[in-house]
Amino acid sequence: MSTVIEVEKTKTEVNSDAKPNFGVTGRKIVYDKDGKPCRTCNTLQDFQFATAGAKKQVKTPVVSGMNPEQPVNTKIGSYAKEDPPDVTVLGRSSWTLLHSIAATYPEEPTNKQQKDMKQFINLFAGFYPCWFCADDFQKYITTNEPKVETQDSLGRWLCDAHNDVNKKLGKPKFNCDLWKQRWKDGWDEQ
Amino acid sequence: MSTVIEVEKTKTEVNSDAKPNFGVTGRKIVYDKDGKPCRTCNTLQDFQFATAGAKKQVKTPVVSGMNPEQPVNTKIGSYAKEDPPDVTVLGRSSWTLLHSIAATYPEEPTNKQQKDMKQFINLFAGFYPCWFCADDFQKYITTNEPKVETQDSLGRWLCDAHNDVNKKLGKPKFNCDLWKQRWKDGWDEQ
Repeated sequence: MSTVIEVEKTKTEVNSDAKPNFGVTGRKIVYDKDGKPCRTCNTLQDFQFATAGAKKQVKTPVVSGMNPEQPVNTKIGSYAKEDPPDVTVLGRSSWTLLHSIAATYPEEPTNKQQKDMKQFINLFAGFYPCWFCADDFQKYITTNEPKVETQDSLGRWLCDAHNDVNKKLGKPKFNCDLWKQRWKDGWDEQ
Repeated sequence: MSTVIEVEKTKTEVNSDAKPNFGVTGRKIVYDKDGKPCRTCNTLQDFQFATAGAKKQVKTPVVSGMNPEQPVNTKIGSYAKEDPPDVTVLGRSSWTLLHSIAATYPEEPTNKQQKDMKQFINLFAGFYPCWFCADDFQKYITTNEPKVETQDSLGRWLCDAHNDVNKKLGKPKFNCDLWKQRWKDGWDEQ
């Protein structure tokens, strides 16, 4: 399915050193400390747009996030040449893992399990591949200490953390009373 | 898109206590220690099949992993009532996160970063939501110590670990010389 993404002229102006401030999705482009567009911090469309900008070869419109001149769906061995995950895929994948970890965390964890879970969350925040998301999450856990006392407290804490990000992205708030239906037990409507 | 999954009679026989040994996908059904089907260890189709079996209400064929009598795509607030992730979604999500973490791990990590990465991998293996996958991964890292010395060594080690799982699942081997194209840099064919 191909969807032409209209470029919003006011937001996609290329700045003086050919580094656009905004991408085709309307999001701000995030750069790494070395000045290159950050692959894990932007959507694939915006990353490709900014990379093209940096090469002074800005081409629009971008179709489905892929430059039409690029080969699509070529293979390497038995595998398709998939692009590295962008900020959206990375976010969805990580929340899936974290909520599932909460769903299988013991209902009455030992002191060691609680200490390990805190350590895991801290290390996760340190190694998260999108640097500005990691910065945000590190700030969040400093002011909202992970609640690792029970499975339910961890599940709700994660749900709140997820809602904090949802808010920043303009997404609706999830009702955290339902975290177990969404991530552990299902909706049980048989 | 709906695909009717044919039930293989020899494999889907229900055993004496209504706990099927094999699911509609042909995979062995994994149970938790309490004897209930493990949601995070099975595909959604197999989990639903085994759950129905446990209730002595086995219905076949299963269409696209959903019981046709279940409400589909109903919503709760602004969110669809999505099922908790199954073993496949969980696996894909987790590899996406882990490979991306390797892709943004420092090329020359400090001793502390190396120690932290080992700790992160150990904790990840301990908390992984699918218990039999976690057992396998824990065994793997015992005999194949994580190589955290450089970004490239970590990326290749993870690629090898992923191939070890691919082999068990009958999936093709990925060429680990290409891990950076797949998970970090892209294929650069512009």
